[in-house]
Amino acid sequence: MVNLTSGQWGTLYNVFSFGLISMLACTVYTLVSQSRVLPKYRNALVLSSMVTFIAAYHYYRIFNSFAESSQDGGVMIGTSQGAFNEAYRYVDWILTVPLLLVEVIAVLALAKAAASSLISRLVPASAAMIALGYPGEIATDNGTKILWGVLSTLPFLYILYVLFVELGKSLERQPEGVAATVGRLRLLLIATWGVYPISYLLPIIQETTAENAASSFVGRQIGYTIADVLAKCVFGLTIYKIAKLKSAAEGMKEDH
Amino acid sequence: MVNLTSGQWGTLYNVFSFGLISMLACTVYTLVSQSRVLPKYRNALVLSSMVTFIAAYHYYRIFNSFAESSQDGGVMIGTSQGAFNEAYRYVDWILTVPLLLVEVIAVLALAKAAASSLISRLVPASAAMIALGYPGEIATDNGTKILWGVLSTLPFLYILYVLFVELGKSLERQPEGVAATVGRLRLLLIATWGVYPISYLLPIIQETTAENAASSFVGRQIGYTIADVLAKCVFGLTIYKIAKLKSAAEGMKEDH
Repeated sequence: MVNLTSGQWGTLYNVFSFGLISMLACTVYTLVSQSRVLPKYRNALVLSSMVTFIAAYHYYRIFNSFAESSQDGGVMIGTSQGAFNEAYRYVDWILTVPLLLVEVIAVLALAKAAASSLISRLVPASAAMIALGYPGEIATDNGTKILWGVLSTLPFLYILYVLFVELGKSLERQPEGVAATVGRLRLLLIATWGVYPISYLLPIIQETTAENAASSFVGRQIGYTIADVLAKCVFGLTIYKIAKLKSAAEGMKEDH
Repeated sequence: MVNLTSGQWGTLYNVFSFGLISMLACTVYTLVSQSRVLPKYRNALVLSSMVTFIAAYHYYRIFNSFAESSQDGGVMIGTSQGAFNEAYRYVDWILTVPLLLVEVIAVLALAKAAASSLISRLVPASAAMIALGYPGEIATDNGTKILWGVLSTLPFLYILYVLFVELGKSLERQPEGVAATVGRLRLLLIATWGVYPISYLLPIIQETTAENAASSFVGRQIGYTIADVLAKCVFGLTIYKIAKLKSAAEGMKEDH
């Protein structure tokens, strides 16, 4: 049980609602904008819609779970029935993070063999990264949290290697303007993914008093939500921008 | 807690329902009308759909929140669980107001550099305007309300400057009839945005008796809702009209 002030409670409630509608609006936007890019880039857009759709579902669940597990500012945490279900985030990530990486590969429209090779390495690594983080998230002692945090970091470093070293080679063949945007996309991914470990580490960094427990819970939830909106919505809109740039470079009329 | 008469309570309940269905109908209308304008104006229409979609979500939440926080005409206000959640409006505005401004730029189909320059100034200014208003909205003393109200007015004045001075220059290059409609659009924007500060100031202007608290609460909610319908639905339909005028001026057949 963490005890939130009414201001903290209201802030989280609205942050979750903000996450939900951002994901939902982004889903509709990318779905209805498909015809504005060349057909070969539409799969990347659909993947982005699926990522935000899955996230919208989970924010709807998180929003309800938060309200239902709260009474007079006290939020029940843990894994028992009626508690705030943090695991929704991990179920979300284990689906959306591999999809996000496939989305990046899809928008680059690489040769089939190169794309398959990248996907077959990024998808298992990203699934392992999420799966290894969960035991640490629900652990109550810092030793266990740090152990799983470190294990989860290993596939994360491998993903960085693939994105920066392996993927970097293919960027040289992208049209002008696209390489720069993909570079920014990669930075956005790193910057937003950096928020997750910080949110994860908040309960370890802060002293464990009752007041700190509340502010670290609030900080972690806000951190995760902002990172999710950046990594899924803003990321998806950047994918859409890249797809439009590439479509224009390949002769699609602006007016089409 | 504000105590409403049964007439006041019923009025608000129906005003919120009116807001919800106006936003929803407008979303569907702009979504299905895309093919009636040239492709380059469709993004403006989709942005309008997103604005009313996000607003429809929030009116759904506001409607439910109002019913759930009420008992025998007494409405619980504040930020604690079960209170009427005024913050839905601010979450809505921080998403929709920047989108509305991008929508105006999109329908003008300016040169890329000019559009980027306007967007990069209007979006942060509008986000700042909303973010600075919220602390005043939830403040209970007039001094704090006025302070944040004044701070929020500064980016608002900057937006007016950009819309009237900077944007004015580009209107000369718009086809006949369009310049006049864009002028009306700008006036609509100013007129409706003028309702928000009046609604915001209602609790300050009126004396703080229990009866006045109720009528100022009701007046503020009705004011915000009417302003929202004008600034989002009527505004979106005006955007659609401009897009049709411009499409016709550029050779799209009326019957197409």
